[in-house]
Amino acid sequence: MSTAQGVPFLKGHGTENDFVIIPDPEGEWQPTAAQVRLLCDRRAGIGGDGLLRVVRSAADPEAAELAGEAEWFMDYRNADGSVAEMCGNGVRVFAHYLYRAGFVGEGGVAVATRAGVRRVRLGKDAGEVTVAMGRAELPEEPGVRVRVGEREWPAHKVGMGNPHAVAFVDDLAQAGPLTEPPVVEPAAAYPEGVNVEFVVDRGPRHVALRVHERGSGETRSCGTGACAVMVAAARRDGADPVRDGSTATYTVDVPGGRLVISEFPDGTVEMTGPAVLVAEGALDAEWLAAAR
Amino acid sequence: MSTAQGVPFLKGHGTENDFVIIPDPEGEWQPTAAQVRLLCDRRAGIGGDGLLRVVRSAADPEAAELAGEAEWFMDYRNADGSVAEMCGNGVRVFAHYLYRAGFVGEGGVAVATRAGVRRVRLGKDAGEVTVAMGRAELPEEPGVRVRVGEREWPAHKVGMGNPHAVAFVDDLAQAGPLTEPPVVEPAAAYPEGVNVEFVVDRGPRHVALRVHERGSGETRSCGTGACAVMVAAARRDGADPVRDGSTATYTVDVPGGRLVISEFPDGTVEMTGPAVLVAEGALDAEWLAAAR
Repeated sequence: MSTAQGVPFLKGHGTENDFVIIPDPEGEWQPTAAQVRLLCDRRAGIGGDGLLRVVRSAADPEAAELAGEAEWFMDYRNADGSVAEMCGNGVRVFAHYLYRAGFVGEGGVAVATRAGVRRVRLGKDAGEVTVAMGRAELPEEPGVRVRVGEREWPAHKVGMGNPHAVAFVDDLAQAGPLTEPPVVEPAAAYPEGVNVEFVVDRGPRHVALRVHERGSGETRSCGTGACAVMVAAARRDGADPVRDGSTATYTVDVPGGRLVISEFPDGTVEMTGPAVLVAEGALDAEWLAAAR
Repeated sequence: MSTAQGVPFLKGHGTENDFVIIPDPEGEWQPTAAQVRLLCDRRAGIGGDGLLRVVRSAADPEAAELAGEAEWFMDYRNADGSVAEMCGNGVRVFAHYLYRAGFVGEGGVAVATRAGVRRVRLGKDAGEVTVAMGRAELPEEPGVRVRVGEREWPAHKVGMGNPHAVAFVDDLAQAGPLTEPPVVEPAAAYPEGVNVEFVVDRGPRHVALRVHERGSGETRSCGTGACAVMVAAARRDGADPVRDGSTATYTVDVPGGRLVISEFPDGTVEMTGPAVLVAEGALDAEWLAAAR
């Protein structure tokens, strides 16, 4: 097998939310939906929750107008081949790749996404990456209810660009195998579906969660879900950075690892967590072309 | 990320039974069970049903005595880190790798495995590989019963080095989601557990199957299972190559692709099917070392 004519790729993950990464700085490769599905197929391809195409904003029509603000565009595709706006775990892995490839130095980098420009900070330990996640939206009446089988819990409605229902439980096992989506009521509170987080305390300002993502089922990690959980836990604990004028910071364990999440007096939320590059190489070009 | 000090690897599959392949001709790399688990982890690693280490028989103490018969040893590890004897889909991918890497030419190659030496034939289309699978063992009283929920079928006990129960059904959907192992009775017929195949006819000497593997659940393919199904279908159809003195050949569709299987007058079974190499590259050596 010759890699000379292969398509370069990497495999990486952030708290086990995993990605096929395709470096394409000059925007020469536009994958078809069938190619994205094949690459993300865990048995017939490489496998991943999604695909991150790394392209200069100026080289991609979708991001060209952001080129002045952000040199790099995260072209994120879901495993089903559709395009996606943003992914909090993905953008950490994306920025870490830029650093490891020598495209950016230590410090900050602005990344263009379909949800706008996101600022990312690379720590001294380059595997720890911080990303600005925007502000949480808390409705005036945040109370909803989450049900799994016979069991039901009060829950908090939190928006983090996408909709969440956060339920504090006594034991993460109470949510059962989560092979079916939990029932959230009133359904009218979530016209576009809902991601559900089950949360237990692990210590002071330290929680752990399980998450059921709409369309994906239970996953190893959900960046926006972890942020929604942090904000709900802060409010439950009487902390409100905007009101208090002081930052709140929580450790949030997800099944695939550990995140540290802060809410600041200006209401913005930042998430810090690992980004891991596992391997790099070349995809068989003939094999990939056959999926067109 | 620098690959200069990375560990070489490939990813490939045979009818979507997928493998991490580690070329290690001189036997310099002995993975720990933790490293095998990490490499086969579909989110934290590369992902695979198992790992194929490619080593010269002479360079591995386990295979050195076979070096005169077979230059190459397939050191097969299960995804859980344990060692395994043989894998019919794996040995096709293994032989195809040897060919693509230039270690063997077209024609035949003998591969040392923990179950002995297997002869593999590479076709003109190098992606189609034929492997000798040994003889089926049919007990004198092959009748068993397979049950899923309320539904029950008569089934045939077939050994292909490992134990199978083959049930002919009207529709593959009748087996349901197969999230639980089917019940096979009498249980005493299978003291070491059982792989269960559900089979429908697709045409003359053409069947399709679903398979539930002990320890793995439903899979996309099972090489020995497909061979057991071929032999059971031949007997059902009145064909017995040893008695008849003529070869029987069946097309067997598995969820992950198509296999062609023959039983010969000497009682041996051969399986022909695809072997696909998807990508090659280098694993991050530091990341891998951390799993020790």
